[in-house]
Amino acid sequence: MSRKMRMGMVGGGRGAFIGGVHRMAAALDGQIELVCGAFSSNPTKSKLSGKDLHLPPERCYGSYEEMIKREKELPEGERMDFVSIVTPNHVHFGPAKMALENGFHVVCDKPLAFNMKEAKTLERLVKKTGLLFALTHNYTGYPMVKQAKMMIKKGKIGAVRKVVVEYPQGWLSTRVEATEQKQAAWRTDPKRSGIAGAMGDIGTHAENLAEYMTGLHIKKLCADINIMVPGRQLDDDGNVLLEFDNGAKGILFASQIAAGEENALRIRVYGEKAGLEWAQMEPNSLIVKWLDKPTEIMRTGVGKLYPEAQHATRIPAGHPEGYLEAFGNIYKNFSNALRATIAGKKPKALDLDFPTVEDGVRGMRFIEKVIESGKSKQKWIKF
Amino acid sequence: MSRKMRMGMVGGGRGAFIGGVHRMAAALDGQIELVCGAFSSNPTKSKLSGKDLHLPPERCYGSYEEMIKREKELPEGERMDFVSIVTPNHVHFGPAKMALENGFHVVCDKPLAFNMKEAKTLERLVKKTGLLFALTHNYTGYPMVKQAKMMIKKGKIGAVRKVVVEYPQGWLSTRVEATEQKQAAWRTDPKRSGIAGAMGDIGTHAENLAEYMTGLHIKKLCADINIMVPGRQLDDDGNVLLEFDNGAKGILFASQIAAGEENALRIRVYGEKAGLEWAQMEPNSLIVKWLDKPTEIMRTGVGKLYPEAQHATRIPAGHPEGYLEAFGNIYKNFSNALRATIAGKKPKALDLDFPTVEDGVRGMRFIEKVIESGKSKQKWIKF
Amino acid sequence: MSRKMRMGMVGGGRGAFIGGVHRMAAALDGQIELVCGAFSSNPTKSKLSGKDLHLPPERCYGSYEEMIKREKELPEGERMDFVSIVTPNHVHFGPAKMALENGFHVVCDKPLAFNMKEAKTLERLVKKTGLLFALTHNYTGYPMVKQAKMMIKKGKIGAVRKVVVEYPQGWLSTRVEATEQKQAAWRTDPKRSGIAGAMGDIGTHAENLAEYMTGLHIKKLCADINIMVPGRQLDDDGNVLLEFDNGAKGILFASQIAAGEENALRIRVYGEKAGLEWAQMEPNSLIVKWLDKPTEIMRTGVGKLYPEAQHATRIPAGHPEGYLEAFGNIYKNFSNALRATIAGKKPKALDLDFPTVEDGVRGMRFIEKVIESGKSKQKWIKF
Amino acid sequence: MSRKMRMGMVGGGRGAFIGGVHRMAAALDGQIELVCGAFSSNPTKSKLSGKDLHLPPERCYGSYEEMIKREKELPEGERMDFVSIVTPNHVHFGPAKMALENGFHVVCDKPLAFNMKEAKTLERLVKKTGLLFALTHNYTGYPMVKQAKMMIKKGKIGAVRKVVVEYPQGWLSTRVEATEQKQAAWRTDPKRSGIAGAMGDIGTHAENLAEYMTGLHIKKLCADINIMVPGRQLDDDGNVLLEFDNGAKGILFASQIAAGEENALRIRVYGEKAGLEWAQMEPNSLIVKWLDKPTEIMRTGVGKLYPEAQHATRIPAGHPEGYLEAFGNIYKNFSNALRATIAGKKPKALDLDFPTVEDGVRGMRFIEKVIESGKSKQKWIKF
Repeated sequence: MSRKMRMGMVGGGRGAFIGGVHRMAAALDGQIELVCGAFSSNPTKSKLSGKDLHLPPERCYGSYEEMIKREKELPEGERMDFVSIVTPNHVHFGPAKMALENGFHVVCDKPLAFNMKEAKTLERLVKKTGLLFALTHNYTGYPMVKQAKMMIKKGKIGAVRKVVVEYPQGWLSTRVEATEQKQAAWRTDPKRSGIAGAMGDIGTHAENLAEYMTGLHIKKLCADINIMVPGRQLDDDGNVLLEFDNGAKGILFASQIAAGEENALRIRVYGEKAGLEWAQMEPNSLIVKWLDKPTEIMRTGVGKLYPEAQHATRIPAGHPEGYLEAFGNIYKNFSNALRATIAGKKPKALDLDFPTVEDGVRGMRFIEKVIESGKSKQKWIKF
Repeated sequence: MSRKMRMGMVGGGRGAFIGGVHRMAAALDGQIELVCGAFSSNPTKSKLSGKDLHLPPERCYGSYEEMIKREKELPEGERMDFVSIVTPNHVHFGPAKMALENGFHVVCDKPLAFNMKEAKTLERLVKKTGLLFALTHNYTGYPMVKQAKMMIKKGKIGAVRKVVVEYPQGWLSTRVEATEQKQAAWRTDPKRSGIAGAMGDIGTHAENLAEYMTGLHIKKLCADINIMVPGRQLDDDGNVLLEFDNGAKGILFASQIAAGEENALRIRVYGEKAGLEWAQMEPNSLIVKWLDKPTEIMRTGVGKLYPEAQHATRIPAGHPEGYLEAFGNIYKNFSNALRATIAGKKPKALDLDFPTVEDGVRGMRFIEKVIESGKSKQKWIKF
Repeated sequence: MSRKMRMGMVGGGRGAFIGGVHRMAAALDGQIELVCGAFSSNPTKSKLSGKDLHLPPERCYGSYEEMIKREKELPEGERMDFVSIVTPNHVHFGPAKMALENGFHVVCDKPLAFNMKEAKTLERLVKKTGLLFALTHNYTGYPMVKQAKMMIKKGKIGAVRKVVVEYPQGWLSTRVEATEQKQAAWRTDPKRSGIAGAMGDIGTHAENLAEYMTGLHIKKLCADINIMVPGRQLDDDGNVLLEFDNGAKGILFASQIAAGEENALRIRVYGEKAGLEWAQMEPNSLIVKWLDKPTEIMRTGVGKLYPEAQHATRIPAGHPEGYLEAFGNIYKNFSNALRATIAGKKPKALDLDFPTVEDGVRGMRFIEKVIESGKSKQKWIKF
Repeated sequence: MSRKMRMGMVGGGRGAFIGGVHRMAAALDGQIELVCGAFSSNPTKSKLSGKDLHLPPERCYGSYEEMIKREKELPEGERMDFVSIVTPNHVHFGPAKMALENGFHVVCDKPLAFNMKEAKTLERLVKKTGLLFALTHNYTGYPMVKQAKMMIKKGKIGAVRKVVVEYPQGWLSTRVEATEQKQAAWRTDPKRSGIAGAMGDIGTHAENLAEYMTGLHIKKLCADINIMVPGRQLDDDGNVLLEFDNGAKGILFASQIAAGEENALRIRVYGEKAGLEWAQMEPNSLIVKWLDKPTEIMRTGVGKLYPEAQHATRIPAGHPEGYLEAFGNIYKNFSNALRATIAGKKPKALDLDFPTVEDGVRGMRFIEKVIESGKSKQKWIKF
């Protein structure tokens, strides 16, 4: 019988941010059911969080270990199908590894892990188990990002020559981590965030977006990594020169001290024949700048778009689809692919369009390399 | 025990548009569960539609009458709590009336009914039964619409002098109803749509938005109602002069032959001290134009906003919230109010912020009056 | 020998606004030389104003009568070729009539005159004398307005169905005319402005722009004319329904109490195949909205534009041309046509692209009719 | 007696681009009169060009040497006051040097010279002679650039932390210099342009804008300089990391292969308290992004602006002032300062707000250093 895919969540208890996002994204299309969770390492808090979500208390676990163990013991028609990991960076590896080792598919927030060693271990495990693994680089879920990717792939703008990708935020312009701000606290703490701050938190999104959209890989980089707010231990700003594998050049910058910016991820790709521009804060427009003819505004749901873009669209043109819908596209594709997999079928190509553990490994390498370059006097570092 | 509110749906089977929107909007916050539906008047199609949604076949009914009757017979812990009506205009009244008469709360798509008589009957029934009734004038669900409403209410822009509200679309620029376009077919058919075309479909949204945001009521109007595409029976364009109860003047226009427009609902309100501007296609910005000082861009999630706006916001600034989130705010508030009501408590004021049957009656009057004015040689018609 | 055209100015002394605009617009292209002026009815002030402009005192006259008389007596190689009239509305007719009667060509600010009788007299005089007469409806001087006009003329958007033209300003939101504000004072004074306030000052610009761009004529109108600021004698706001001679419908609104608006003249024209949008405050873009394909942004200087648009462009794409350049296009075309006329040649068609006395007569009729309609209980008034 | 300042021009004959810009900019305010020119090194062409401009043939010279020599011999009341140099880069030094040595003030297009040696020579000459020297880094002439400069100077945004300045153009995306395109030809030719292409042509504008607006100086840079179009000899693209003298970091990029871009100079400056954003293609807006309160749009002519911004504004708010007006501000200030100087007075501070020979020397150093860095394997190069 037709059924929803069953999700167990690690993290995302009361007071968390990204956990709620994952739940809304997963719920949106009516294809996924949250059935259990280890919402907090504090069992009482986990139960209370689960109650908010109308879960039965017996499926609100005190730890991910408990959750995975117990769920595995449940009958097949009841136990969760996959684990969604929404904890801070230092608690990605543990639950991901254990889930994979126990036969559960995984959705994991980015960056993939705390360091490269963990990342490579997860990559091997995914390959070995054949389980599905989605990494929530959610910005690639927007229809117009997919349209841009396809236009580049199909040669509409000619060979890519220059990429400018930027991710300015302003919320860490002052030392908010010294206040009660929970989101700031772990992101600026090397013990929970890893070797990078802004570069790990949002720089990896920029890197992933640039590689996803262009289909190119970064080959070399030269990074200027900064701590602008006194007393902070991890980077809150960075500017990076890029060289891609086809010879294209680029700039990537990410900043959390760009005062007054909200979440202004933006990318421009210039090819031989046209330039493309997409901005996350107005995500339903893709600006196509042609050589010597009028600029076009491609829009979600308007006219002939590539199937990849249409597949990521839910409602008619002019009804803005936002962040949660883009995030939901990862869950939608993942759950479709999962349903097929469980049914012993090969997932459709369109449904496999979600970021994978390999993207996660590239993201971890990006973090390592920008931090290394930031400390180096040498201009270019190989990626 | 904590539980989700249980929804039964009338309409919204395969090939429908707004049914899926209602389902996504209802699912978003994890507070509502779709438990049954009469998705089509064709029982086989209803069952197939229900299967897509992972519903058990026995709760996919062949008619709304069957659904309401059978659900009523189910035990309290199982049967639906409310009915969501997502059919064309001529099938609002029947299920709404029957639901109310059988003790089910109602969410209904707009306009409220096929004509004023039906509308008034529903209004009386809601009053009589004391049941909750939400009308999905979804555009008032956007946070920045609520912020604007509160600013006006608190006197920030002084007395309102002028309102310009417009709703241009272009999708009926050609006679698409002559093709297979199901959405166009019923909207342009007087037997299913009622006496108005564009004015009923989108003019009422403009009217509702203007009254909701300003807190004013239309007192008089002068309408020029047009059929621009030959062969069409209902208006596809209209321009209306308005006078409000405080003496403010206004313009409302709605058009479905505004070639190339997507869904460009936009409102400008000018007061003695400032002007406000909000556009549905960039819904997270509210532009505040002051006399002789810099224009401000208020943004969803940025800075100090009124509680009404904050209550309608799910994610941090810069993560665009769109159409489904605004639509979901009606369901969220409705389900919160419903949960309180079922628990015998008084709903919170913030949760009662959704359009009601009274808004529906005003919308029906608007339809009647603009059509009447459109045929009149007299300048002003009392609302 | 090649020479500049010689201009004499009426009005525009110290403290004036539009006089300086005319001088800059006339000077821009190096084809016109200011040689004399009656800058003020106060001879001393006129001389001082002339000194600021580096004119010899003997050509700074105390009245337009004196200027026209004396200049006529100067030798042909020295005397002015044309008069530029930049006074308030009630002082357009006198100098225009006298200039024409004495063989001088005329550039005149809008509206053409104080009332229709004056306007018709000037129209007859222009016809009779064969002299050149330009009316500075400057907004039609923008390249992208011309591009839009040509697109419509060439059928690119199909038959026009709907026109929305608006001109909101906010500067009269309070009673600034009660202060020293010289510009507000005469515009709100029936003795100097005529029967209309906002409708004469800016409504006529909107009317002229709509007719120029579409090539259509207004056939009927229905106006709601308002005084929103207590104590004011002339309209400061108005909303007008329009019907054009091809059956297209429209809305025109003009307001000087639209708080926070600068000078937001904007027009949208919807045809069968596409919609056009142009806004004076971002004048180098023309938005072309197609049915079901991407919207295009046509830009001054980019790609293949009509000769009319190119002729109105001075610098390469991306170097914004503004208000003075558009204003200057009237002077440029006028001076080119004048040079040809003086040389006994027929001016080029492209150089005759400036507003004429006939446009002025239509503007005066617009003023008369909107004010008449504003007082009427009848819905439609013939234009 | 009051008189206009008399300008002689070097370059700018038929077919040139920037010469016409200089003439329009100089003419705009009616304070400068073009009296002579050496418009071309071809005497016939120079005379024909002068005829288009209504100059007497005897003041249309065949070379700058001739012009300077002959003009010097004219009586004081007749001869030019200053020379305006609008030739390609390799012909800046000659006329500038000779003009200064013969007592003429100078306006010169940027970059200052062909190489650093020339630049330093001119700097010494200006200092020695005490003559006025303006370099037309015209983008600093916009009112909102001046407003931003003053806001930073007055501490409104706190200490500057990050600067992002970019200047993308697309017109050299193909090898247009191989066609008849005169503008492309000299700019891509090392013999006429110097050691840099895009970096000299537009990169210096970006550098000058960043230093002017922030009041900071570049201390170190790390440049990636590229030739993207095969067969080209000079850079057509470059990405530069910056460090300023207060420790702020930055990115500068300039490109002439950014397909589809017009002239998209844009700057963002992030301070401790706010971020500023200004874009040349919408020059009348300055976006001020505050920490946690609404973004403000400052506009030319609206509200209380600094005197420096007001001084650079000609017309009321909402009447867009563009490229020529900004360019004209250099000429306006220069001519005001010149008039005072000639009268033996000290120019007003507001009138001395134009780029000088020192700015030109910094621009030449920028060119040298980015090219040097582009070839280096070392990360940072001292400026």
